[in-house]
Amino acid sequence: MTRTNSVDRALRERAEAVIPGGMYGHQAVGLLPEDYPQFFSRGEGARLWDADGRELLDFMCAYGPNLFGYGNPEINAAYVRQMEIGDTLTGPTALMVELAEAFTGMVGHADWAMFCKNGTDATSMAMVTARAHTRKKTIVMAKGAYHGAAPWCTPRRVGITPEDKANQIFCDYNDVASLEAAVAAAGDDLAAIFAAPLKHDTFIDQVLPDPEYANRARALADESGALLVVDDVRAGLRIARDCSWSTVGVEPDLSTWGKCFANGHAISALLGNNKARNAAAHIFVTGSFWYQAAPMAAALTTLKLVRESDYLERIDVLGLRLRDGLAERASAAGFGLRQTGPVTMPLFLFDDDPDLRKGYCWSSAMLERGVYVHPFHNMFLCAAMTEADIDLALDAAEGAFKVLQGAAPTLAPIEKLAFLLA
Amino acid sequence: MTRTNSVDRALRERAEAVIPGGMYGHQAVGLLPEDYPQFFSRGEGARLWDADGRELLDFMCAYGPNLFGYGNPEINAAYVRQMEIGDTLTGPTALMVELAEAFTGMVGHADWAMFCKNGTDATSMAMVTARAHTRKKTIVMAKGAYHGAAPWCTPRRVGITPEDKANQIFCDYNDVASLEAAVAAAGDDLAAIFAAPLKHDTFIDQVLPDPEYANRARALADESGALLVVDDVRAGLRIARDCSWSTVGVEPDLSTWGKCFANGHAISALLGNNKARNAAAHIFVTGSFWYQAAPMAAALTTLKLVRESDYLERIDVLGLRLRDGLAERASAAGFGLRQTGPVTMPLFLFDDDPDLRKGYCWSSAMLERGVYVHPFHNMFLCAAMTEADIDLALDAAEGAFKVLQGAAPTLAPIEKLAFLLA
Repeated sequence: MTRTNSVDRALRERAEAVIPGGMYGHQAVGLLPEDYPQFFSRGEGARLWDADGRELLDFMCAYGPNLFGYGNPEINAAYVRQMEIGDTLTGPTALMVELAEAFTGMVGHADWAMFCKNGTDATSMAMVTARAHTRKKTIVMAKGAYHGAAPWCTPRRVGITPEDKANQIFCDYNDVASLEAAVAAAGDDLAAIFAAPLKHDTFIDQVLPDPEYANRARALADESGALLVVDDVRAGLRIARDCSWSTVGVEPDLSTWGKCFANGHAISALLGNNKARNAAAHIFVTGSFWYQAAPMAAALTTLKLVRESDYLERIDVLGLRLRDGLAERASAAGFGLRQTGPVTMPLFLFDDDPDLRKGYCWSSAMLERGVYVHPFHNMFLCAAMTEADIDLALDAAEGAFKVLQGAAPTLAPIEKLAFLLA
Repeated sequence: MTRTNSVDRALRERAEAVIPGGMYGHQAVGLLPEDYPQFFSRGEGARLWDADGRELLDFMCAYGPNLFGYGNPEINAAYVRQMEIGDTLTGPTALMVELAEAFTGMVGHADWAMFCKNGTDATSMAMVTARAHTRKKTIVMAKGAYHGAAPWCTPRRVGITPEDKANQIFCDYNDVASLEAAVAAAGDDLAAIFAAPLKHDTFIDQVLPDPEYANRARALADESGALLVVDDVRAGLRIARDCSWSTVGVEPDLSTWGKCFANGHAISALLGNNKARNAAAHIFVTGSFWYQAAPMAAALTTLKLVRESDYLERIDVLGLRLRDGLAERASAAGFGLRQTGPVTMPLFLFDDDPDLRKGYCWSSAMLERGVYVHPFHNMFLCAAMTEADIDLALDAAEGAFKVLQGAAPTLAPIEKLAFLLA
């Protein structure tokens, strides 16, 4: 059956007229296979329906926010209940205090919380707080790490000035010598060391944190008086019920959170320890909707589910089932498939596939079989997934590997990904 | 009756432990009179209830977002309906296209729209778009104008580097010669002229835009190839059903929107004309929740109410009734009260009141009478207000002027506002 995607095509045409480039940001499908839908019509549990009504088992989870299932009834009920009482008001409600108490009660290093809307708000606040605390400027970060899309951190240089990117020194993730060199290069001007909880850059294999690297980052920050920041916006709550680096025994001074802690409702957070409290109290950051109460109600319910349910153990088991099952099927079909990162945040890349033509072909065949996987960005599992869903994905994968076997010898280059070969 | 504010006090104490400084941002009440509540418990229509359950007629409207009444049933129903279908998904829904069509259909200069979460997101995108379009760096802005709280624009310097504020030249609002000098100082590096739709800085009288200034800004941008940006985040939809500078006959290239166009649900926007489209299509900006569909549903309903109701004419009439009534009562009580800005966004400042001690006394007396006014920030009217509400506020004002008459001779200095005297 050839799908026409006619509703999606029509929406793209209308979007082209009123949205620059037809779509922008991380959900623009310009770099995805042609058959990937741009627009969706519905979400429920682990499933999405695209604009043409096709049902898809979704391994992107909205790029992270969907942790307990799209439209989770308990979380949405908490949202609606609070929305009807009061949401965006002339000041915060008691829920802001309750949420700060709940979050800091759960995250080991955290003594305080500040809430905002974007993950980028949280990482920007972390940077400003570190500079306020140290009265120094330089931020050390890993090359290729994504910390948001504000001028100081956006990965694309269009419209960005050299001054926007000033006072930054880059190291290689997990490379202790490179981290030491970056810190040395900062001289006596080090304000913060930023760290992703794992290397989760697009287009390349994910890499878990080396405990030696994490511990060295902590020690270097302590020696210089700089703050250590773990950017847990993407990985938070899919690795631990605490900051993700708690799993390697390292506590940061600041951690940034977003995406899933209100299960897709708009709220992010900066958490910090007492060392950074005074600085955080003196910076000026705010937003029109930062104090709205309904997302805080949703976050309180989400954090309760985090604390009281076995969601993390369940998505770990599901992720392992997926990883093992895929490895077996890839191997049986004669493909080298690299599955990297935590099993709850997998990334799949084929061996000998520099411009992703195999990955494209396989992902499209998965989509055709009703399973949405991403060919070059890490994916996410959610607690609404079941063993039957994983088995459905594995069945789809078996079929997709067969498609790839047939197509592999004659796959055309992916023109739009030619930059990967450079 | 002496109020204890006991619930508010208890919440502040708990907040002090888990939120830096107890509260941050524009809704922190640190600079307000001591009896102002920090926490609220409910909102409905034009009314708020503070954490202690006191009912207040609210002239802050959540600092703008409340345009059609807190908890507007029609707008909230649209929100909930869409939330249940699908909200934060792996891509946008058709609502994003519909909203871009609706918004650009309403705003004269706009050919396209990009949606985001914070007003600051929109102003930051405007800056980056202008730099991408011109391949130049300098932004001309008016001194004291608020364009958000990112490092490049936050009004407080704590944690901010000189590089964060690089490539900015300041002029005086409404001063053509000063604007011309700023543009001349930019040389051949002018990327954008930013303009607030009116001078709505805190602590000082508001000033409406001089059409000569607005026209000169347009001409200077055109002569240099720079973009003209009107930051309508605060004033949008309370002055016109179009960009606010349409009322002085000037169309910008970019305009920024937020706060009220989804009546308090979290969404902001950058609108632009075709000149800026290509640049906007090539910058990289995004956020985890920027494509969520429920706030777009709320925005579509809000914009429908904007187009199809007489809300603007009604709040104009109410604002005029308030202004005239207050002028009369202030004068009768022997006070010079300066009421500035559009009647839908009033600011009240007393003559001969450099550290606002009169304003503080009067505002506290208004609060005591159940009316929430702000002593130094512009306020907002909403369409849920009635003539009876205005009359209630005027009765309260009469009483508050009497209190001030009694207290004026012995008012103590406001220590925390001593900086205003410097």
